[in-house]
Order: sequence, then C-alpha cells, then structure tokens
Amino acid sequence: MPAKFYSKENLRFLLFNVHETEKFCDREYFKEHTRENFELILESAESLAANQLRPILLEMDRNPPHIENARIKVHPKMRGLMRTFGNDGWISMSAPNEFGGQQVPFTVLQAVSFIFGAANYSPTAYAFLTTGAAHLIEEFGSKELQQKYIPKMFSGEWQGTMALSEPQAGSSLSDVVTTAVPTAEGHYLLKGQKVFISCGDSDAVDNIVHLMLARIEGAPVGTKGISLFVVPRMRAAEDGNLVFNDVNTAGVFHKMGYHGAPIAHLMMGEKNDCHGYLLGEPHKGLSYMFTMMNEARIGVGVNATSIASAAYYNSLEYANVRAQGRKLNEKDPAKPQTLIINHADVKRMLLFQKAVVEGSLSLCLQACKYYDNSKTLIGEDAENNFLKLELLTPMVKSYPAEMSNHTTSAALQCFGGYGFTKEFLAELFYRETRIHTLHEGTTAIHGMDLLGRKVMMQNGKATMLLMQEIMQDIEEAKKYESLKTYAETAFDKLMKMQEISMHLMKVAQKSGPEVYLSDATLYLEMFGILMIGWQWLKQGIKVEELKLSTSKEFSTEFLQSKINALQYFFEYEVPKTEGLMTRLKSSNHVTVDAKPEEIL
Amino acid sequence: MPAKFYSKENLRFLLFNVHETEKFCDREYFKEHTRENFELILESAESLAANQLRPILLEMDRNPPHIENARIKVHPKMRGLMRTFGNDGWISMSAPNEFGGQQVPFTVLQAVSFIFGAANYSPTAYAFLTTGAAHLIEEFGSKELQQKYIPKMFSGEWQGTMALSEPQAGSSLSDVVTTAVPTAEGHYLLKGQKVFISCGDSDAVDNIVHLMLARIEGAPVGTKGISLFVVPRMRAAEDGNLVFNDVNTAGVFHKMGYHGAPIAHLMMGEKNDCHGYLLGEPHKGLSYMFTMMNEARIGVGVNATSIASAAYYNSLEYANVRAQGRKLNEKDPAKPQTLIINHADVKRMLLFQKAVVEGSLSLCLQACKYYDNSKTLIGEDAENNFLKLELLTPMVKSYPAEMSNHTTSAALQCFGGYGFTKEFLAELFYRETRIHTLHEGTTAIHGMDLLGRKVMMQNGKATMLLMQEIMQDIEEAKKYESLKTYAETAFDKLMKMQEISMHLMKVAQKSGPEVYLSDATLYLEMFGILMIGWQWLKQGIKVEELKLSTSKEFSTEFLQSKINALQYFFEYEVPKTEGLMTRLKSSNHVTVDAKPEEIL
Repeated sequence: MPAKFYSKENLRFLLFNVHETEKFCDREYFKEHTRENFELILESAESLAANQLRPILLEMDRNPPHIENARIKVHPKMRGLMRTFGNDGWISMSAPNEFGGQQVPFTVLQAVSFIFGAANYSPTAYAFLTTGAAHLIEEFGSKELQQKYIPKMFSGEWQGTMALSEPQAGSSLSDVVTTAVPTAEGHYLLKGQKVFISCGDSDAVDNIVHLMLARIEGAPVGTKGISLFVVPRMRAAEDGNLVFNDVNTAGVFHKMGYHGAPIAHLMMGEKNDCHGYLLGEPHKGLSYMFTMMNEARIGVGVNATSIASAAYYNSLEYANVRAQGRKLNEKDPAKPQTLIINHADVKRMLLFQKAVVEGSLSLCLQACKYYDNSKTLIGEDAENNFLKLELLTPMVKSYPAEMSNHTTSAALQCFGGYGFTKEFLAELFYRETRIHTLHEGTTAIHGMDLLGRKVMMQNGKATMLLMQEIMQDIEEAKKYESLKTYAETAFDKLMKMQEISMHLMKVAQKSGPEVYLSDATLYLEMFGILMIGWQWLKQGIKVEELKLSTSKEFSTEFLQSKINALQYFFEYEVPKTEGLMTRLKSSNHVTVDAKPEEIL
Repeated sequence: MPAKFYSKENLRFLLFNVHETEKFCDREYFKEHTRENFELILESAESLAANQLRPILLEMDRNPPHIENARIKVHPKMRGLMRTFGNDGWISMSAPNEFGGQQVPFTVLQAVSFIFGAANYSPTAYAFLTTGAAHLIEEFGSKELQQKYIPKMFSGEWQGTMALSEPQAGSSLSDVVTTAVPTAEGHYLLKGQKVFISCGDSDAVDNIVHLMLARIEGAPVGTKGISLFVVPRMRAAEDGNLVFNDVNTAGVFHKMGYHGAPIAHLMMGEKNDCHGYLLGEPHKGLSYMFTMMNEARIGVGVNATSIASAAYYNSLEYANVRAQGRKLNEKDPAKPQTLIINHADVKRMLLFQKAVVEGSLSLCLQACKYYDNSKTLIGEDAENNFLKLELLTPMVKSYPAEMSNHTTSAALQCFGGYGFTKEFLAELFYRETRIHTLHEGTTAIHGMDLLGRKVMMQNGKATMLLMQEIMQDIEEAKKYESLKTYAETAFDKLMKMQEISMHLMKVAQKSGPEVYLSDATLYLEMFGILMIGWQWLKQGIKVEELKLSTSKEFSTEFLQSKINALQYFFEYEVPKTEGLMTRLKSSNHVTVDAKPEEIL
C-alpha cells in the first residue's frame, strides 16, 4: 500500500458536509445516483489510484516519453491504464446516458480526478482530456461524428486532445494560422503546426482525436475567424480501415516534470492529406473551445491541488518520524531529539500546506457545484450559477496553480537537505506542479480575464451575486465564537476589495486599459486569497455544527485540525492582502511607464 | 560567446560607486591593490566564466555525478578547471601572502564568485569550498598542517570540504557522533559517517581534505564537546607517498539540480585506520567551524543571487525577442504582434527579478564590506563592523536564497509554456537554486539565529549600530525628490519593525522562547525586505549623484533602469512587510498550540 496522498475524510467532509453534493441526486439529470453511489465511485477511484497509479509515479518520472520512429513512446503501463479508464467508465462518467455515459455530476468527476492526480498526475491527463474532447463532440458534433468518435474515446482506445497553441499563438490564440481548405467531399484539408499538445501522440492508444482550432481559407483575421475541427491521427478510409491522416509528430517536449504525459509538436498536412471535420458552425470555434477550456481550467485547479496534497502528506509523514533538534525549552543535549513536527516552524509549514490544499479543494468544489447547477437548474437559477462560475474560474484555476508552487516548496523544505535529493518524492512534486501556472492560460491571462472582463460583466452582476452568497456565509460564521473575528476580518477585507475595484474603474476611465490592467495579476491574487478565506469560513461553520451535534462522523482531531488550518489561513495568508491592496491603490505605474530599453 | 548572465555595469556600479571597494586599497593589508587591479581581476573572471564555465553548464546538468568503483566521477572538464582555479590564483586570492595568497578583499572574492556562479554555479563549489577549508587551516592549523595541506589546496590539486552533517545531525549539529580516539602518535582515529558533503569525493582532484567535526572520546555531550579535525582522503605515509586514509565513499546524492557538484555520503574508519589531525584546541571545533560557516553563508547569498541573475538575463533576452499578443489599446488583429517585454505584466516580472537580484547583490557586498572592515580596521571600528556583519548574516544568507526561488520562477513564467521545457535554461535555474534555503542552515535556523541571538546580542548593540547607519542613508536619500517618499516609507517601516521587536521581547518574557521564536522565519523575511529597501536607497542616492554630475560613466538608460527597479521594490515588495507585521503582532499562536495529532 503506498503512502497517503490525500485525505479521504477531508474529501468526504468537503463533498457532503460543506458542499452537499448528495443534493444533486434530487435533480432529474442525476436521479439515478445516491450519496452511497458517489461514495462507491470514490472508493473505486482510491483503489485504482493506490494500486495502479501511485506505484508507477516514480517510474514515469524517471522514464519520460521519447520519440521512436517518429512516434511518441510512453510508459508501457499507460496502454492498459487507458483501457481501464475506458472500460471502468472513468472517461465517460460525466457524459449523458445517450452517449454511453453515467451522468455523474461534474463535482464527482473532479473529486475522482483529485484522487487520481494526488496519486499520480500524468495519467489523469490522458483520461480527462479525452472526456473533455468527447464533450465537445457531444455538444457540437454531428450524429455521424458522435457515432464515429465518442465510443472509441470512451473505451480508452482513442485519445482526445485540445489542439490550440501554435509556435506564434500561445497566449494569443487570435493568431492561430493553421488553415482549413474546404473540399467538395465535405471535409477540410488542414495545414499547419501545433505545439504543446498534451497527449498529442502516444503509443498508449490506437488513435488520437484532435479537437483543433484552424482558420478556414478566407476567414476574417482575429478570433472571429477561427473554427473548430475534429482531426484524427488516423481516419477511416472508405473500406472502414484506418489510414494515416497526415498528422505527423514533429517532436516531443522534454519537460521539468509531469513526465508521464507526452507533450507533442504536430505537423498537419505535410502531404496535403490531413482531413478535418468541421464541428458546429464556421468561425465559432473559439467560443466552442471555451466550453472545454473552462472545464479544463477547473481541472487545472484540481490537479494543482492534488499534487499539493500529495506533497503535504509526504512531508507530514516525514515530520512525524524524523527526529532532529530539541524543543527550545529543553537545554539538555543528552536528552533524545524530538520529532520535527514538534517545532513551531515545521508546524507552520505543514499548516500552510493544509490550509492551502483544503481551501483550494473546497474552492474547486464550489466551482464544480456552480457548474452542475448551471447545467441542471433552469432559467435565472442556472444563469446565476453560470455567472458565479464564470467569475470564480480565474481564481479556481490560478490560486491553486500559483500556491502549489509554494506549498510543494514548503513540503520540500520540511525534509531539510534530503528534500533536494531524489531519495524522497518532495523534489518530484515541486517539479511536477510548476506546469500549472502556464497551461490553460498563464496566470497573467487569468488576471486580465478577471479584472478586464469578469468583474464588470453584466454591470457587475456576477460579482454582486457572489458577494451576496459570501455575505450570507459570513453572517452565519459570526454566530460562532471561534469564527467571529475571522468572519469580521473577511467582511472587512471584502469591503476593501470592493473599494479597490471602484478605484480601479476610475483609473480605467482616466488612464485607459493598460494602466487599469497592469496589476491584474495582483488583483487576482488578492481575490483568490479572499475566496479561500470564504471557503475556510464555510468549513468552519460545518465544523462548529458538527461539534454541537451528536454526530461521530468525524474525529475530534479532524475537527480541531480544521480549526487549526482555518486559524492559520486567517493569521498568515489573509494578511498578505494588505500589501497587495496597498500596491493596488498606488498611483505609481512603473510597470507601464518603464520603457523596455530601461529594463537592463 | 554565451548569452549574458550578469551585468558588468551593475557590478562595477555596486562595487565602486555604492560600496566604494577601492577605498580598501588604503589599508595596509590591501596596499598592493588598486581599483584597476580589481577591475582586471573581474575582467579575467568574466573571461573564465564566459569561455570555460558557461559552455559546460548544460552538459553538467545532463550528466550528474555518479559512482564508479566506489568513487564519484564528475564532469571530465572539472579536473582541468580545478587546476585553472588553482594555478590562476582564484582559490587563494583572498589568502594572506604568507600562505601564497594575494590578499584580495573578501568583497572582490565574492564579486568573482558571483560572476562564476552566474555562468555556472556548480564549479564554484569546488573552488571556494577549498578556499574556506584552507582558511580554517590558516587560522587554526599548526605550521606542519599548513605546510602539508595549503599549497596543494591552493593549486587545485586537492579539494577542501566542510564535513559537518551526519544522518542524525543536520540542523542539530550538537548531535554529531563521529568519534575521534587519540593515539600515542599524536593523530586521532576517526569513526563515523557524514552526509551531504559537497565535493566530498570526486575524480577532479588527487586528494580530498575534509575539515571535519567529531567528538573526542569522553568529550561532553552537546556543542561543547565537538572538535575540528583535518581528515584527508589520502594521507602521507612515512615514505611520503599518499596512502588511503580509510575515508570511504558510501554514496552520492542524486539531486534536483546543482548537478555539477557531487554531494557525498562518507564512512570513516571502517577499517579503524582513518587518521585525523586536531585543529586548534579540543572541544572548540564548532566555534572554529563558524568562522568558515559565516563566510559560507555570505557565499550562499551570493550564489543564490548569481543564479537569479542568470535567470533574469535569460528571461530578459527572451522578452526582447519573443512576440506574442498586442498592446491592450491595439484592437486590430491584423497588426503584427508585439514583443512580450511591452506587456506590463512581463515588465513586472522582469523588474521583480532585477529589483531582487541587484538589491541582493548590494546587500551581499554590504556584508562583505563589514567583513573586510572587521579584518582590517582595529579596535572598536573592527568590533562594530563585526557586530553589523553578525546581525546582517541571516538576511544575507536567507533573503537571496528564498527569493531566488521566486525570481527564477518568474523568469520561467516569462517563457510561457516553453519555460517548463528543457529547450531553454529557465527550468534549470529554477531547479538549481532550490538548494540555497537548505544548505548552510535552513531558513528557519537563520530566523532563530536572528531573533533568538543576533537582534539582542550585547543588549542590542548590533541592531543599534546598523540602524544608525541606515538612518544616515535615509536622511541622505530624503534630499532627492525621486527618493524622498521611499526614504520616508523605509523610515516608517523600520520604526514599525522596532516596535515589533519590542513587542516580541515582551512576548518572550511572558510566554517563553517557543512562542517568542515561533514566527522567527517571518521576522527574518520582514527584516530582509527592509534591508533590501535600504540597499535600494543607497543605490538611488548614487544614481541621483551621478545624474547631477558630469560623469558619463553610466548610460542614461542604466541610471533610469535603477530608478525603475527601486520604484518596483518600494511599490511591490516593501508592502509585503505589512502582512508580516500584522501577523507578528497577533496574539494567536496556532503553530505552537496546534498538537501534532491535530495536524492531519
């Protein structure tokens, strides 16, 4: 049995006590499910994670994907795993019954992804990229495309991808230049190249199905001329046999971590024989793709949190067995050394990790709840949940991504010099998680999305709705002695954040968009911290309710550990907003004013 | 010619304009030197760095040291390099003439180390560990030991090491258990094991000379029973030939980065034939070792800064050639993309790096100045410089170490997805620098050293002396319009820091050492930020003086880039002290109060 990589108790607490996931079962779409059923799914996920994913984590890290005969070879166990992900229903779990799915809430899918990712992040990319790609075909594909692709993807025989980036178009997707020329037969001929395509080629599957952005010949420049295509690596010939579709693997990216998953460089149409099948209407590709991207962004938050969770339990375990030094009031060097978990600074590093991991996971599940609500409620309720999801997504993606760099670093630090060595996993988690502030939009992109679009959309309606909900939780938290001060702090900080938002609106009017958005990354950071504070208050409320109840569902230690982490978060993390707010109010704009030639 | 890895202009500015290193030449000890001489040394260092160190950086990373026939094999070029470090006088440059050294100031030695480390960090460990080990023999060794070891070390034929840590004694050096049994012949027989010994074995040299902590049989427990020994890997037999001294290489640590230098696990006395030679008096080993450690700690600050410098110029170069996206006021997607350095958030990440790198380097040189003053002034002047050095050392070691993790991360982020790949050096620097918060005392150890010992030593005399000096600089800075506000900010923050120190003293009296020191790491961070702010004011003063003068020594762009970085530091970094101060004033002590079983 591998070491602990996540807390089952905590995941249950967040799902069923804090976010009441079982209530989804009342909805028509989820009516075949029950809490017991969800629990069984999570049990199975843990079993797969512990028995099949974690055991190959180290092997995958030490043997990254490589090119052999112009194809990418990955870990040999990955083929069997993809079939397991397929046959056991993990890839299709959230899909509608009509496509062979089980209509499991997105919330539960992400909880499963969290368990898998905490055990071993890389394999989850194969599975859930396929889920996401299939979802686009479900939503926008013709019956023919659906029948041809979805079953093979759900069985894990075929891999799905998102093929967006090009060498000149990463953050700037409007600069995609891959072209699609229509043919009389109905398909398009694609030509161009794509970079950073996760699972873009691998020998773990029989075929790769790219959901690819390209520009139909003659389309307008910019985002309004981008269409979405299904571009398989192998296409069905008239006789039904699969033939090569002129999607060539130009290379594999060698990376700092995340070694289990291949990131491909692809060349389409070198022989002018790359067929692509238009998904939905022409020129609407980017908006379709955002369906998948927004799910993927929640996925990044979950993935970053899962790696941070693995690193946390790794360091917690070490802190409970490693003896070093003595308590500060113990002056006798003849006395035995104490476990390092008894040192305040080690406890600080552990509580930091715990507070970020459990706060982040709670925030991710909050977003998942909005997602499932937006899909299964109707009318204004659905719309309001969608708006809150839209607003929250930049923080859900970026807070865990940014913070997992710091928490995995703290985990490594707990090991002292050993943390820098490959004798322990700490250095692996530190390398592994560094991808998350980069893919699915860099942190800067999300800052601009938040401040430049989300905060003010529909005249700030999303912000208003979210703040209303948070204020209710704050009022509730104030009822408990242990939470009162922190609830007041949260209120105070949120008010200050509102003031800053107002201040920035004036800046926008006076100085234009560049100055307005110049510190969007800091605004995002501030907003993120306060959202995690909110999630800790929500957890605190449930802890206090449980303490007052006769329930023995959770141990006293578990409940107290929650209060400890909550205190840590408000004592050490929330104060970080002070400096951010000071900066956001400043009238100095050095990052705008400094000329490039004056940075040297 | 490799890409830029440090700024020559900046190093000259800091050495000669800000810290007036040439004034040392008036001192008797340094009288053979001139500014021109120092400049020639730096020119030679750059030439060696660019032509011999940087070209093998990548090779060293891709081919880490390994064990072959129970010996550690390192990069094949390392042997020639060590002879170059020896023959060209780099190892011995700061040593007294009487030992064959050139009596170059420690300040200049560290400037050289900075240049070397920015090109390629690992090789510097071989050279300057040897310098440090030889220094201990210079100070505490017998004539015989000096004659036997120093020349071979200075020639680069023999490697010097610091052999302190043991598996059970890392941060807790008082728990060293390696034993030394006296013999009738005068030498001791050593038995035990050491871990994490940098350059503790390698085929780049003919012999390894360990400066090793051990406990003479019957010595008191704790730090008061530790002695210092010279323990060579090969010792001279009676016929003068070198014979094996029973120092066995048990292993090499496989690390996340810093691959050019071997970190050894050693076993001494497996055949009871490991001779060690006592250095100085028995039981005083730890205090002798601190001579070397305090120099090494400044070295860590310099090394961390050097890697951060390499990462900064790497990302700056990329930002000046990579086009992506458009300025926010450019709505036409048909217009060409802009260089990423034109985006405010990229400029923010660059200025962050610049402000930290140049602030850190200035702080390191400040400490070096105190060091050289303490060695070459007399009486109270020497003593006062020593006190300021002692106080500053925790920040000099830890601020660059901690911050280089963040700045190399920002450098990586500038590359977008490419930053995570091995196509660029960004990921290498990120891995490489992570060692620095661990070796030579973890950050937590330095926090406790600062708050538990340094701040209050001699009734706070060091603090008082340092603050006096800083206040003079603040007064000077206030004379300039561009610096006035920031000088006032610095004053205000330093006053608040004093209040916090006073507050913590009361906490110590009331609640004891554990609560007092529980946030020592945060106190260290706060102190560090303010010390860098001070160094930026010092730089600002010189910039304004240069602007008012007729000197054309520095370009307008250079001077403006300094003002930009100064503004960045006070606008974005100094505000971080607000949250730290809030926390340090809190009466909540969750990291002390939380029971280990309530962190789960």
